[in-house]
Amino acid sequence: MALKVIGFDADDTLWVNENYFREAEDAFCELLSDFLPKEEVMKILFDIEMKNLEIYGFGIKGFMLSMTETVVEIAGEKATHEMFAKVLSLGKEMLNKPVELLDEVENILNELKDRYRIILVTKGDLLDQQRKLEKSQLEKFFHHVEVMSNKHERDYQKLIKHLDVKPEEFLMIGNSLKSDILPVVKIGAKAIYVPYEITWQHEAVSKDEDHGVGYQQVESLSEVLNYL
Amino acid sequence: MALKVIGFDADDTLWVNENYFREAEDAFCELLSDFLPKEEVMKILFDIEMKNLEIYGFGIKGFMLSMTETVVEIAGEKATHEMFAKVLSLGKEMLNKPVELLDEVENILNELKDRYRIILVTKGDLLDQQRKLEKSQLEKFFHHVEVMSNKHERDYQKLIKHLDVKPEEFLMIGNSLKSDILPVVKIGAKAIYVPYEITWQHEAVSKDEDHGVGYQQVESLSEVLNYL
Repeated sequence: MALKVIGFDADDTLWVNENYFREAEDAFCELLSDFLPKEEVMKILFDIEMKNLEIYGFGIKGFMLSMTETVVEIAGEKATHEMFAKVLSLGKEMLNKPVELLDEVENILNELKDRYRIILVTKGDLLDQQRKLEKSQLEKFFHHVEVMSNKHERDYQKLIKHLDVKPEEFLMIGNSLKSDILPVVKIGAKAIYVPYEITWQHEAVSKDEDHGVGYQQVESLSEVLNYL
Repeated sequence: MALKVIGFDADDTLWVNENYFREAEDAFCELLSDFLPKEEVMKILFDIEMKNLEIYGFGIKGFMLSMTETVVEIAGEKATHEMFAKVLSLGKEMLNKPVELLDEVENILNELKDRYRIILVTKGDLLDQQRKLEKSQLEKFFHHVEVMSNKHERDYQKLIKHLDVKPEEFLMIGNSLKSDILPVVKIGAKAIYVPYEITWQHEAVSKDEDHGVGYQQVESLSEVLNYL
């Protein structure tokens, strides 16, 4: 069955993202360093993020709200208004970051755009993802942009139905085994895994979940051209 | 030209929304009542919301972050961690509200669903709107659900292109002149305005913008059936 549609993940596949979260987390831990060491602040923040994930979803605004909650939890009555102001400014700084494309992204999209329908498949805040796409100047390459609140099997099934293609005609390329690769393989579609230098803890998968079969893994995005 | 697609706005057209914001604002003003009277708190909060609208977009998470910023601004060093905790709990309560359908919504959608392609056209947080749609049990009526980060003319133009219909074949029904009616009329599509009992200040339009022409106005949603 010939491939018709290629879906690209955005964050950490086409452009830098996770690094900005790590920088913000470092500054956040510093803010609370009088109360707890970094590892403990990180653990509490992550637990609060996970607890809130169902109601906030992915993205920077939810991250800001979880940092706010972490200040309340850790600093308690010693929390100052400056701490909360700092959380807001860390988040706003993230929302205003320029978009830094990863190596070769434009060349690769340019190479593929006339041979396949290329779409962008990302999760997170709708507005934030649209803004990044605009800043990236990559919009012209994409036939369709799908911002999903999650990337589970049923979300990909809906997407494929909407695109009016069969699973075997769809290929997903991304840096998250959990979100871009395993659910896609499970519904019978194709996937190429391009690991990024850092992975958010939430996106990590265990050996039980990933048997390394059913998808290709490459070292860098430009290698995907060898398979297309 | 025969009508093919009907777009329904969601918040305050199909279900209650603005009332929950008003309740939260009342509680928020109460929280800061030792510092400033209600009208002044509301004015500062609104100004902060408007300043942040471009980066946060519409929705409850942005509202929570703007309330947080308002506490910092108004209470300053007298701000307590309880105030910030209260803002978080007010927002989470909103995110967990049940969906309360407006009168006759199910009957009306049921009446129209076989005669037109019915779609949901809403702005705000993707996850929150999806959750409300799920809770509403109205998903079965909609051919397509479009969550937009904004409802400007260009957004409706994109939507119509995506739906593959001509402007004259599209009708939008909603409670906001600014978001659901005027931009739709401007691109040559049809619109029916169903005012809701309360309107968010941001959605208000001046006499200069609205000449009352180019759309129908009805008293209640069930009256739209007279035109279809």
